Amino acid sequence: MTQPLGVGRVTFKRGGLAESVHRVHAAVVDARGQTVAWCGDPALVAFPRSTSKPVQALPVALGAPDLPGDELAIACASHAGTPEHLAVVARLLARSGSTVDDLRCGTHPPFDPEVAAGLIRAEEAPTPLHHNCSGKHAGMLLACVLNGWPREGYTDPAHPLQVRIRELHAELGGVGLDDVHVGTDGCSVPALALPLHAVARTFARIAAPEGELAPALERVFGAMRAHPFLVAGAGRLDTTLMPLVPGLAAKMGAEAFYGLALRETPRGPLGIAFKVMDGGERARPHVALAVLGELGAPVTEELRALAPATLHNWAGREVGTVEVEVSLEWAEQNPAA
Amino acid sequence: MTQPLGVGRVTFKRGGLAESVHRVHAAVVDARGQTVAWCGDPALVAFPRSTSKPVQALPVALGAPDLPGDELAIACASHAGTPEHLAVVARLLARSGSTVDDLRCGTHPPFDPEVAAGLIRAEEAPTPLHHNCSGKHAGMLLACVLNGWPREGYTDPAHPLQVRIRELHAELGGVGLDDVHVGTDGCSVPALALPLHAVARTFARIAAPEGELAPALERVFGAMRAHPFLVAGAGRLDTTLMPLVPGLAAKMGAEAFYGLALRETPRGPLGIAFKVMDGGERARPHVALAVLGELGAPVTEELRALAPATLHNWAGREVGTVEVEVSLEWAEQNPAA
Repeated sequence: MTQPLGVGRVTFKRGGLAESVHRVHAAVVDARGQTVAWCGDPALVAFPRSTSKPVQALPVALGAPDLPGDELAIACASHAGTPEHLAVVARLLARSGSTVDDLRCGTHPPFDPEVAAGLIRAEEAPTPLHHNCSGKHAGMLLACVLNGWPREGYTDPAHPLQVRIRELHAELGGVGLDDVHVGTDGCSVPALALPLHAVARTFARIAAPEGELAPALERVFGAMRAHPFLVAGAGRLDTTLMPLVPGLAAKMGAEAFYGLALRETPRGPLGIAFKVMDGGERARPHVALAVLGELGAPVTEELRALAPATLHNWAGREVGTVEVEVSLEWAEQNPAA
Repeated sequence: MTQPLGVGRVTFKRGGLAESVHRVHAAVVDARGQTVAWCGDPALVAFPRSTSKPVQALPVALGAPDLPGDELAIACASHAGTPEHLAVVARLLARSGSTVDDLRCGTHPPFDPEVAAGLIRAEEAPTPLHHNCSGKHAGMLLACVLNGWPREGYTDPAHPLQVRIRELHAELGGVGLDDVHVGTDGCSVPALALPLHAVARTFARIAAPEGELAPALERVFGAMRAHPFLVAGAGRLDTTLMPLVPGLAAKMGAEAFYGLALRETPRGPLGIAFKVMDGGERARPHVALAVLGELGAPVTEELRALAPATLHNWAGREVGTVEVEVSLEWAEQNPAA
């Protein structure tokens, strides 16, 4: 149905000359589940990584309909490890009677540079709570307790929680279970790989919830939009983008993956997924803005500031520019009714 | 003469599936200045960035034949900002009667994570001495004094020092002055762009010095090999690679550029330049080892450890592999005499 066409490109230029080039693949799916637009190969099988978190949070959203929105948001988060993030993780963790010792995410220095510097000053080591995925793991532990599954082994691909998450990915993505490839993520839970259009379809379902999962999808969408800071952190793309775009829930994934649920467009609710092929994270805001613009979102000055077109060096001198060539191919000329 | 052929590729895989892909262009030039091998497009015009430093150090190497090797090495360095690096920069800086206030490189936190953490603990800000290019700038200031040029404006493209460096790049690269494109580097000196084969030719001249520049080129080669720690820092590629490969001088550049002067190969001395097209630095050690292997350097276990074929997550679990597809096309079947 869809043909790979002209791969999208983001070029970092220096002195007017291309210095480095990032290639991009993207898929856009509408509320009916149709792939309506794309750039590059919309069937590219890719790992959404943390872009999967809204789906990984569904078992807890389904099992605890009254969970406070901030706790659901932190379950969907790649958070920056500030005290505000950690307080919400701790609250969610306590809800299943779990402690930091139950977390299997590992440990890394907090993403927030000030918090990381503070730990160094205090000569304190980061804990698993600081891991950007600790909220997801706390949510997974609660989902286990709510479903009567053992907490032990909750990151194992064969654990009932992870099997359920895989089923949810296939169902929401409109693909067979066999089309969901299983790897291991940075935080040791299964990292699932799917075609880009399947991830876009999942985000279209988040933008336009329907069926049995609708209430849980609606809660996830609402929690992310209500708590953009918790979903990432100060100055990070999800956090800055969501308040600026009406009806948008957005989730970054490692290696420059992005998933966006856009509720209000001339074509109705849309789901978007894109992957910068080399994993170059710096291209992501540029691609996000280009795609949002093509889908009819008003690209304001405030939005443009998230993807500056000029590059500066350590001394503050302008040294280059960013050229974005990301135009979508449309499956049909006229917007769907 | 040379045809763009099968772009080199480094693929980061997760769970057996490609997650991110880096594309690579490379050129290999022999002592006669001939492009003998390549992958991708050897005529790709690219910015060597800090890979230019051995050339940018030539005016000081020419003007001060008795400069101690460690000071010449730091003039060629992208150093890590440790006290050992800073002491040599300070010595070189004093030689021209200059101080830290004369440096125009700007300021960034030192590359060495322990030194950076130490500054945070001491609540001290980094100075221009910590900038990875401070040795190059100290060398440039000395070159100005030695040649009777003003120190003021030494980073300006029209300053006699920068004009001379541009001429040296063209001469060593075997290209016209008009083929040397001028941008601005991260440290505010001109960043020059040349075809990959021209940079490889330059490194072939460093591997096999001849003509009027030979003594200075020999001193640069010797200083880099004698002081691999000063050229970069603990755990960084130049520093670890040079002691492991007989007769190799190697210099990294930003955005995943690499230049290598390899004195001892079955084909005689060779110069190599490569660019990872998206600027993905993580691909560089993999490409370097693949190319060195194809050129006949013995790829030992110690060397292989610089480019691990397996990837681990924060918890230490193996999550993926790195697949390197970089094979050179040769201009002739038989090694040159």
